[in-house]
Amino acid sequence: MIIDIHGHYTTEPRALHDFRAAQLAGIDDPARRPKSTDIGVSDAELVASVQPQLKFQKERGSDLTIFSPRAAGMAHHVGTEAVGREWAVVSNDLIHRICTLLPDNFAPVGQLPQFPGAPVENCIPELERLVGLGFVGVNLNPDPSGGYWKSPPLTDRYWYPIFEKLVEHELPAMIHVTSSCNPAVHHTGAHYRNGDTTAFMQLLQGDLFADFPELKLVIPHGGGAVPFHWGRYRGLAQDMKKPLLGEHVMKNVFFDSCVYHLPGIELLAKVISPDNILFASEMLGAVKGIDPETGHHYDDTKRYFDQLGLPEADRRKIFEGNARRVYPRLDRRLARKASK
Amino acid sequence: MIIDIHGHYTTEPRALHDFRAAQLAGIDDPARRPKSTDIGVSDAELVASVQPQLKFQKERGSDLTIFSPRAAGMAHHVGTEAVGREWAVVSNDLIHRICTLLPDNFAPVGQLPQFPGAPVENCIPELERLVGLGFVGVNLNPDPSGGYWKSPPLTDRYWYPIFEKLVEHELPAMIHVTSSCNPAVHHTGAHYRNGDTTAFMQLLQGDLFADFPELKLVIPHGGGAVPFHWGRYRGLAQDMKKPLLGEHVMKNVFFDSCVYHLPGIELLAKVISPDNILFASEMLGAVKGIDPETGHHYDDTKRYFDQLGLPEADRRKIFEGNARRVYPRLDRRLARKASK
Repeated sequence: MIIDIHGHYTTEPRALHDFRAAQLAGIDDPARRPKSTDIGVSDAELVASVQPQLKFQKERGSDLTIFSPRAAGMAHHVGTEAVGREWAVVSNDLIHRICTLLPDNFAPVGQLPQFPGAPVENCIPELERLVGLGFVGVNLNPDPSGGYWKSPPLTDRYWYPIFEKLVEHELPAMIHVTSSCNPAVHHTGAHYRNGDTTAFMQLLQGDLFADFPELKLVIPHGGGAVPFHWGRYRGLAQDMKKPLLGEHVMKNVFFDSCVYHLPGIELLAKVISPDNILFASEMLGAVKGIDPETGHHYDDTKRYFDQLGLPEADRRKIFEGNARRVYPRLDRRLARKASK
Repeated sequence: MIIDIHGHYTTEPRALHDFRAAQLAGIDDPARRPKSTDIGVSDAELVASVQPQLKFQKERGSDLTIFSPRAAGMAHHVGTEAVGREWAVVSNDLIHRICTLLPDNFAPVGQLPQFPGAPVENCIPELERLVGLGFVGVNLNPDPSGGYWKSPPLTDRYWYPIFEKLVEHELPAMIHVTSSCNPAVHHTGAHYRNGDTTAFMQLLQGDLFADFPELKLVIPHGGGAVPFHWGRYRGLAQDMKKPLLGEHVMKNVFFDSCVYHLPGIELLAKVISPDNILFASEMLGAVKGIDPETGHHYDDTKRYFDQLGLPEADRRKIFEGNARRVYPRLDRRLARKASK
């Protein structure tokens, strides 16, 4: 099967946007607060809302998408911590419902109620709730300040309580920033890529996986700038007297394949081990158009892999095997389904 | 000839570091202020200090390095604006002296006395002084806050006074951040690449070159994450209804080749026009080691180009022609020397 490990719910019903608007307006004007966290969307409406994703799955030939709330929608820097917690619950509940309604097509990954400056352990109750609901991973934002990088690096003990819980529950985290409130830093064009690159460098500088040998982190968007500058990162690790990257970070860190042109995917497959690449497209994501140079959608990343002529064993790792290894709860979910 | 457009003076004499330490200590304790801006280094000492660069030029086969003060040393976020102005003058004067002593090997690029929150026009006196001294370009820091991105984007009118002067004097600017005071963001491993990527996206979002059609900006380190994600940037421009990147930004924006492995240089040459690539190595720069996979220095970037089998016309552009076009003052300097 083919698992796309990076999909966000970017086709949400209008009611979710209305709820969020009311929630934020309600901070200043309590009269505007949403009356309920039930946004009043039927199962049929939810199923209808993800038809574009199902259509692309079919057309492009993927089977299952690991599905989480809209990345830019997390906006941890907006509002108050209590508002953000409620927002995470409402967002995650929609993901849960969709993945329950369409279990063959979607597996759930959750949003954490992070808040700038707040202890990360405040996210644990929601994380435990997600485990109970059968989520297979979470998104973890290394910069809840939204483009100003005010949190300590991921290797700091600030983050340890959440890593402990991730390991305990066999949940991987995708290290994914959210929208940017910094006018100098565009979200999908700069902040996402910077987030990926910065997180990787934090892990290179530190020694997090000595403390958490079982922790698995997914860096999206092909690892940001990292594979293009793989020689630089190998060289920096060497100058810092760190072990080889394969030992030091790549037993625990995985890059997805949200890179939207053939030469980029070629490079990724050339410098990164097939054990560390997870197929992904982020559809319907940041780039929606059709590439005039190919006549195909930029984000139809499977096409690029199909042109590489990879050995079948590597293809299987990238398209399925690695995902089942990095997301053990997904693997068990699929095994349960298969045995039914 | 072969021009390396990106070299920093990273082998400064001890006296320069002592001067800087005294300068910063002098902010709190006036008794420690340096007595003079003459750091007391002889011409012979300056020439001795750049022997490592000369050795690499010879061994690797480049002729001339465009040479500027240490990038991390600019540290615009440190001290006061007056201290930073003095620091720029002292740093630039050393570059000027080296390039005067060794005019066949080095051409000068200057550091601007930017300061977080200060109007950028405060840099104009030093810029005019550099023109008088024969400098061929400047480094412009898009984030003088040192990793917190507190300045408006490069397309904002905040920056226009400096762009006007650059155009008037036919000076290109390399968009180069300096050290990071943000503990989450390592300077050479994250901030530099993020700076490159962020600057490119700012230019993509805006329409700066409609106002400054003659302005030339060099984005170092191979353009950060941009070439690896070239499909994403083409797609984002398309979604934003911008013209094709070749029209919209690539008549004015150039990427250097500080990418430290063959697959990266291959990708760069594959997706970026040979009219927009400037040969560079940043030696002696961020990565000093020898790549165990090749037995050669990571930053010996000429070797990677030599393995590409590029058409001779493209090689000439990348190694010399583009540099003479982007740095017209360098071109005239070389022409004057040749006619002597």
